[in-house]
Amino acid sequence: MASYLTGLIGSGIGPSLSPPLHEREAAHHGLRYVYRLLDTDVLGDDVGELLRTARRFGYDGLNITHPCKQSVIPHLDELSPDARMLGAVNTVVFDGGRAVGHNTDWTGFAQSFARGLPDAPTRRIVQLGAGGAGAAVGHALLTLGADRITVVDADPARATTLAAELSQRFGAGRAAAGTGDDLPALLADADGLAHATPTGMAHHPGLPLPASLLHPGLWVADIVYRPLETELLRRARALGCRTLDGGGMVVFQAAHALRLFTGREPDAERMLTHLTDLVTA
Amino acid sequence: MASYLTGLIGSGIGPSLSPPLHEREAAHHGLRYVYRLLDTDVLGDDVGELLRTARRFGYDGLNITHPCKQSVIPHLDELSPDARMLGAVNTVVFDGGRAVGHNTDWTGFAQSFARGLPDAPTRRIVQLGAGGAGAAVGHALLTLGADRITVVDADPARATTLAAELSQRFGAGRAAAGTGDDLPALLADADGLAHATPTGMAHHPGLPLPASLLHPGLWVADIVYRPLETELLRRARALGCRTLDGGGMVVFQAAHALRLFTGREPDAERMLTHLTDLVTA
Repeated sequence: MASYLTGLIGSGIGPSLSPPLHEREAAHHGLRYVYRLLDTDVLGDDVGELLRTARRFGYDGLNITHPCKQSVIPHLDELSPDARMLGAVNTVVFDGGRAVGHNTDWTGFAQSFARGLPDAPTRRIVQLGAGGAGAAVGHALLTLGADRITVVDADPARATTLAAELSQRFGAGRAAAGTGDDLPALLADADGLAHATPTGMAHHPGLPLPASLLHPGLWVADIVYRPLETELLRRARALGCRTLDGGGMVVFQAAHALRLFTGREPDAERMLTHLTDLVTA
Repeated sequence: MASYLTGLIGSGIGPSLSPPLHEREAAHHGLRYVYRLLDTDVLGDDVGELLRTARRFGYDGLNITHPCKQSVIPHLDELSPDARMLGAVNTVVFDGGRAVGHNTDWTGFAQSFARGLPDAPTRRIVQLGAGGAGAAVGHALLTLGADRITVVDADPARATTLAAELSQRFGAGRAAAGTGDDLPALLADADGLAHATPTGMAHHPGLPLPASLLHPGLWVADIVYRPLETELLRRARALGCRTLDGGGMVVFQAAHALRLFTGREPDAERMLTHLTDLVTA
C-alpha cells in the first residue's frame, strides 16, 4: 500500500492548518499520509534547496506558499498549463524524476467564490494584491465572468504587470492597474472587493485599506483564513456587505492539491467543517 | 492529532520490509505514520548529514542499519544505557532538540530467541559476526544466560574487541574470540550457532561457513530475514537442526522501535504474520 509524505514550503508558516486539514481528510480515505511544515525562516535554505532535499528525503509532493510561489518556478521541470499561465505555483508533485508545478489557488478561489457568493454581481471588481495569490484570484474572477478588475498593489509595477497579463489572457480592457489614490473612486463604482494581500493575518494585523472606503453596495472577499473573520470582513459585515472568508479558498486549494498528490477525490464539505473546527478550537 | 514521520538509514536498503511493517502496524493503531527509506548509496550523504537533514525535514525518528549502526554514534546527543554499552545504535528518536540513540536489535533478538528456541541449550555458542548486529546478538545471548560465546569475524581484531567487551560486561570467560581455523573444533563442541553477518541476504548470497561444519547437535539462529530461509538455515534444517530465522528479530526490533517512536504498544504477533505475508508474497 502506498504512503504519502507531503508538506508546505513558505515563510512564517508555523500557524498553518494545512497539516491537520490534509492528514485528517487523507485518514478518511484510509491513506497513510503525513504533512509537514518546511518553514524557510526556520530552515534557512532557499526554496530550490528545500525542494531538492525534500524529494531526496522521501517527499511525494509539496505545497508552496508566500513568498515562494513565483521563486519556485525555475526549480521545476514542468508546469501545468494553468501554473505556466499564472506564473505562480502552489503545488509541486514529484512524478518519478520530475518536479511538476500546479496552481490550485485559482481553482480553489473560483470554487469558493462560486459556492459562497453564487449570484454576486461582477461588473466592476477592485482587487488588492498582485502577488502569487493575487494572480490566482484575478484569474479566477475573470474566468468566472467578471467584466473588469482593477488591481491595486503597494508595488505599482507589480499591479501593472498583473493587469497586463490578465488583459492579454482574457481580452483588452478586462483588467487595469490602479493605485492607492484611485481607491475611493474605484470602490464607489465597484460591485466587489477582492482582498489578496497578507494583511489581516495573525502576523500582519490591520486593514488593507481605509475603512471609510467600504460601503454596503460592495461584496467583500478575503483570502486570509486565519482568522476567518479578519478586521476587513468584520468591518464589511458591520456595514451589511455580503462577505466571503478565506476558508473556502484554503479548503478547496487543499482538496485539489490532495487530489493531485494521491489521486483520491476529497470531500471538500467535510474539510470545510474540519477547518471551522480547527479555527474556532 | 500527532503524525509520525520515520525511516531507515543504511546502504542497499531498497528491499527492506520495514516501511510496510511499520506503516501497517501503525495503521492498526489509527496512527498517521509514514516510514521512508534513506539509502546512503542513493543519497550519497554520510549518516551524520542524513540525520541532521532528516530532523530538519520533519522526521520524528530513524532506524539505522548496516553499515551505520556504529558510525552514527558521534552524531547523537545522548545514548540509552543499552546503546552506550553495546556501542551500536539502530534507533534514533528526535526528542525536542536532542537526537537520542537506542538499540532495539538486542532486545529484538532476545525476544525472538526466547520465543523461537525457548529451551535451547546455551552452554557453548559459536557466533559469526562481530559488527553492530553481532554486538546485539552476543549481548542478548549472554543476557539470556548463555555460559560462553566464541565470536568469529572475518576481521579478527573486531572479534577480539567484541569478546573483550562482552567479557568485561558479563564476566571473565563468558566470551572469547576465535578465527575461521578454529571453527571445526568450536562447532564440534557447541550447542548452537548464531549467525550475525550479512551473508545469505539477497545481495550477499551463500554460506558464512563450510556446510560440512554443521551437525544435528546444533541449533542454528540466523539474523538474515530476507529470505527467511537462508542457505544456512536450509542446510541446517536438512540435517535436522533446530533453527530460528531472522524474522523474529526484525519484527521485535521494529516493534520496539515503533514503541519508542510513538509510545504505543505494537502487536508483535500480528507483525510476524504480516512479515511472513510480505516475504512470501
